[in-house]
Amino acid sequence: MKWVFINDDFFEEDKAAIQISDLSLQRGYGVFDFFRTVNNKPLFIEDYLNRFYQSAKAIFITVPLEREQLKEVVFKLTEKNNLPESGIRITATGGYSPDGYMPVEGNIIIQQQPLKLPPKEKYENGMKIITHEYVRDLPAVKSINYLMGVWLQKEVKEKQADDVLYYKNNVISEFPRSNIFIVNNNGELLTPASNILAGITRKKVLELAKDVMPVTARDIGTNELMNAVEVFMTSTTKRLLPIVEIDGKKIGDGKPGKITARLYELFLKMEQKETAPAAAGA
Amino acid sequence: MKWVFINDDFFEEDKAAIQISDLSLQRGYGVFDFFRTVNNKPLFIEDYLNRFYQSAKAIFITVPLEREQLKEVVFKLTEKNNLPESGIRITATGGYSPDGYMPVEGNIIIQQQPLKLPPKEKYENGMKIITHEYVRDLPAVKSINYLMGVWLQKEVKEKQADDVLYYKNNVISEFPRSNIFIVNNNGELLTPASNILAGITRKKVLELAKDVMPVTARDIGTNELMNAVEVFMTSTTKRLLPIVEIDGKKIGDGKPGKITARLYELFLKMEQKETAPAAAGA
Repeated sequence: MKWVFINDDFFEEDKAAIQISDLSLQRGYGVFDFFRTVNNKPLFIEDYLNRFYQSAKAIFITVPLEREQLKEVVFKLTEKNNLPESGIRITATGGYSPDGYMPVEGNIIIQQQPLKLPPKEKYENGMKIITHEYVRDLPAVKSINYLMGVWLQKEVKEKQADDVLYYKNNVISEFPRSNIFIVNNNGELLTPASNILAGITRKKVLELAKDVMPVTARDIGTNELMNAVEVFMTSTTKRLLPIVEIDGKKIGDGKPGKITARLYELFLKMEQKETAPAAAGA
Repeated sequence: MKWVFINDDFFEEDKAAIQISDLSLQRGYGVFDFFRTVNNKPLFIEDYLNRFYQSAKAIFITVPLEREQLKEVVFKLTEKNNLPESGIRITATGGYSPDGYMPVEGNIIIQQQPLKLPPKEKYENGMKIITHEYVRDLPAVKSINYLMGVWLQKEVKEKQADDVLYYKNNVISEFPRSNIFIVNNNGELLTPASNILAGITRKKVLELAKDVMPVTARDIGTNELMNAVEVFMTSTTKRLLPIVEIDGKKIGDGKPGKITARLYELFLKMEQKETAPAAAGA
């Protein structure tokens, strides 16, 4: 039995519920964040908590736990659940709104799930993606609004793709749950700068790549994307995953690229360093 | 104590809860509809149920109740709660999704609240509104995604307005929870035709107005809006409400218009006819 934390107490998962007046159910109003534990240690937790509190503030949600209290709950939860390789999701909702519309003090929910990373063949063979013209509402905020992303899953499946990339006016932005990078003909690493959620894995890759090659965050046209030498996506659950086909067209030679592999190795090393048992108390 | 129906049973309101794996909480994924009871009789229920099942189908949510079963539950709920003047909300969510992303069989929630219509002075003095450039995701679907609408409430309050009207590329569409109509210089009644939710009150007003004046549903520019002789909004909880100020500029002579008042009277008559006690069994 897994434990879930809600507001001020731990509940067994099948008893973890929220009342129906919560604004998440009434109006899809809430923010969340999601990070991994490796060897029972939360990876890059400070970065994720920064983003979580920023998201909440941006849409006027009062998180009922201070940052240090919240961290304490996360550590207690990992002790109670003992799931060394897991995903932890922290959600703050608009709360039990009397009129079903105006946010009040939020409800906070912290849940943990065992996490399986994508299978090895995804890294070896690369991903196929499609594109869709769309920009998320308030893209800098990690809100719970995934209406478009979930709705598009049917088309993704029908086209036998792995994911869908958003673009608007011929400028690409992000996946519903991941960021995108390209390597161009000049050996530069590029990633979109606007209309995106600032991914934590994206941030770490930008840091790591600086020692390897020129790196720029800026607008990227769809043409530039299709003519890229390498393309990859980043996310908490995917680390870096190569993309080899977009809307039925091959990228580069249609195989995962060397720079993607190199950056993936660097990211793995960083992750191992952060989560080595010896460093657990650091 | 009010009763709430969830999936297959009635619950007391403070015990009405859904588990946290529901896609409404995880991904803001769900649809709903909302109608009034007058004299304990649901008003225009067939229209609302049409739209509810259409919304669910459009975003691949399986409603776990057939239409006739659902109606039966609504009538049972009105009996149990005995709230003659009320709002009834039917919500179908993406369900308890194992992966927190793909919709499964939905959860259905039916709740009833006492309903107060806007105070008399709103009808007498008219509403002040602001505008915001935005189109809802999948606007024809009554999804639970109100991220933008709820988020904008702060600006609405700060500008001492009553509501916010969406437009895109200088074409107006709708309010977060209401439709808009204008009367132009030629005595025509116009309402936006695209990027809107097809309101039931809007539908009834279009029907009623046909006997009064020329009526057209088509794109309306922001200029046409600002030069209108009368402007009003329609919704289930507002019926028709006159709008007298937009972004700080007066509409017409700054007072509620005669055609708005005439259509409001016609709507009231229709509502009374539909819900007269003698017609309750009809």
